[in-house]
Amino acid sequence: MCADETNKLSEFELISWIEQQTGKSELLSLGIGDDCAIQRQNTDWDLLTSTDLLIEDIHFKRQWTTLYNLGRKAAAVNISDIAAMGGVPVTLYLGIGRPQEISDLDMKEFIAGFIYEGQLHGAELAGGDTCASKGGLMISVTVQGQVAHGEAICRKGASFGDAIYVSGTLGDSALALKKLLAGESVDKYLSGRFHLLDLSDGLVSDLGHILKASGIGAEIELDSIPLSQEFRQAMEDDATLIDLALAGGEDYELIFTSPLKDLADQPELLPGISRIGAVCQQQELRLRQADGKLYQCQSGGFDHFD
Amino acid sequence: MCADETNKLSEFELISWIEQQTGKSELLSLGIGDDCAIQRQNTDWDLLTSTDLLIEDIHFKRQWTTLYNLGRKAAAVNISDIAAMGGVPVTLYLGIGRPQEISDLDMKEFIAGFIYEGQLHGAELAGGDTCASKGGLMISVTVQGQVAHGEAICRKGASFGDAIYVSGTLGDSALALKKLLAGESVDKYLSGRFHLLDLSDGLVSDLGHILKASGIGAEIELDSIPLSQEFRQAMEDDATLIDLALAGGEDYELIFTSPLKDLADQPELLPGISRIGAVCQQQELRLRQADGKLYQCQSGGFDHFD
Repeated sequence: MCADETNKLSEFELISWIEQQTGKSELLSLGIGDDCAIQRQNTDWDLLTSTDLLIEDIHFKRQWTTLYNLGRKAAAVNISDIAAMGGVPVTLYLGIGRPQEISDLDMKEFIAGFIYEGQLHGAELAGGDTCASKGGLMISVTVQGQVAHGEAICRKGASFGDAIYVSGTLGDSALALKKLLAGESVDKYLSGRFHLLDLSDGLVSDLGHILKASGIGAEIELDSIPLSQEFRQAMEDDATLIDLALAGGEDYELIFTSPLKDLADQPELLPGISRIGAVCQQQELRLRQADGKLYQCQSGGFDHFD
Repeated sequence: MCADETNKLSEFELISWIEQQTGKSELLSLGIGDDCAIQRQNTDWDLLTSTDLLIEDIHFKRQWTTLYNLGRKAAAVNISDIAAMGGVPVTLYLGIGRPQEISDLDMKEFIAGFIYEGQLHGAELAGGDTCASKGGLMISVTVQGQVAHGEAICRKGASFGDAIYVSGTLGDSALALKKLLAGESVDKYLSGRFHLLDLSDGLVSDLGHILKASGIGAEIELDSIPLSQEFRQAMEDDATLIDLALAGGEDYELIFTSPLKDLADQPELLPGISRIGAVCQQQELRLRQADGKLYQCQSGGFDHFD
C-alpha cells in the first residue's frame, strides 16, 4: 500500500470503523464504544470464558501469513476453547498492540478477518483495546460463549474405560512448519492446514491435561491416529515424523473421551472422528505400537503431564 | 533474587501455583485449569465485560514499579471500567507475555498483586494465558462484572443541563510523571497517586467520549476542578500545570453526569466528588476561566473528540 496512507486513522476513527463492521446480536445489549460491553444473562445457560495471547515471533511470523488470515486464526483458536467444552461462542474481545509499521490497511484486514471468522461461528466482536507496541504485533483475544446449565464438558470428566477420540487428522500443521523451516516447498493441502499459531500443545500434552485433571491414565494405539494422505506419504521417507502427530501441536482438532465405544462408527452422528485409544487406571500415558511394544515420543509434549 | 532460581517453573507448575492463590466465588462454577471458566448466569443481572492491554514501555516502565504494584494496577484499571458503568466486578482473566528476564519470583509477585487487588473488589482470577514474549512484558486483562438488568450507566445517557462531576483530585499522577521524567524528586503523596499506566485519557478526552456518544457539549469551570494541595503548590510556580489536570491522564477517578445539581453538597451520599461544570447543547467542550474567558488547553486530550 501507499506509504502516505499509513497510520492516518486516529484511535477513535479506527474504533468507529470497527463499529460499522460488526453486526447485531440478540444477547448483546451494548457492543463497542463504551467502557464495557453489556450482555443479557439467562439462568438456563452457563457462561464460558477463555482468553489467549498471540505474540509475534512466538506464535506467528508475519511474513508467513496475510493479516486477514491471522485475524481469522486469532478468532478461531479462541473459539475452539468454547467448542472444546461443548458450548457456542457469543462474543469476542480483541486487544491489539500495534507496531508502527502496521498500516491502517493492515489493521483493517486483520480486524476484518477476525470479525469474519467470529461471525462464521455466531460470535460478534463486542469490545477491545488498541495501543502502540514497541515489541512486535501483540494480540489478545477473549471469547465468551454459553452452554446449557450444568452441561459443559470438563477435562476432569474422563473415567476408566472411556474411549478416546480425536477429530480430523493430526500432524499436518507441524509437518508444514517443519518443511517451511527447512526451506522445502509445502503442497497446497498441508499449507492450508498450517495455522501459523502454535497454541495447541499437541495430542500427548493436551490429553495429558485431561488425564491429570481426572486422576487417570490412557493408552493410545499409534496405528489408530488419524493421518492425512500427505502426512502418510511424508512418513514413508521418515517414520519418526509420527512424533509431529503426537506432539507437534497446532492441530486445531478436538480431543474428547466418552463411555460410548462406537462413536467413530456412526459418521452420521459425529462425522470425521477417530477412536485412538482408551482411558486406563494407571496414571501414565502409554503409546502402543502395532507390534505391542511401547513407543517413546522423542519430541516435546510431555512437559505438562507430570 | 538468585539467578539460579530464575524460570525453573514449567507453565503447568505456574498455573498450579496460581490456582492455589485464588479463592472461591459463588458465581464461578469452574475457574483456572480447563479450556474455559464456567459461570452461573442470572436473568436479573446484565453481564459487563471490558478488556485492556498493558505493554511495557508504552503503558509502564518496569524500573518505576515493583511487579507486585504493577499487578495491582493492572487489575485496578480494568475494574474501574466496571465501576464506570455502575457494576460490580466478578471475574478477571489475565494474559501474560513474559520476557526471559522475568524470574519466577517476579511472575509470582505480579500475579499475587493482581489477585490481591481483584479480591479487594470482590473479583476472582478465573483464567488466563501465559507465554513467552520477545518484545517486553505484555499484559492483557479482561474483567467481567454485573449490574442489575437495564441499570448500566452508559456514556450516551448525558442530557442538556446535567451537572458534570468527578471523584477525587485530578492531575496528581501526571504531575508525578512529569517530575520523574525531569529527574526531580517526587513527594510521597504524589508518588502514591502515580499509577505508572496511562490508560485513562484525561478529563478532556474522557468527557469528550461521553459528549460525542450523547450528541451534546459541555462547559467546565476551571476553578471547580478538584486539585490536591500538592498540585496547587506546584501550580504556584507554573500555572500551565493545569493542563496536566485537564489532559494528563492516568487519573483513575470517575467522571459522570447527573440531572441532580447538588450531589457534591451531600458527602454522606457520595463522598469525595466535585461538580465541575454542566452539559450544554452546543456540541463542543468549553473550558471557562474564573474571569469568564475561554481557556485553551495546550497539551493533548482533544484528539478523541471531533
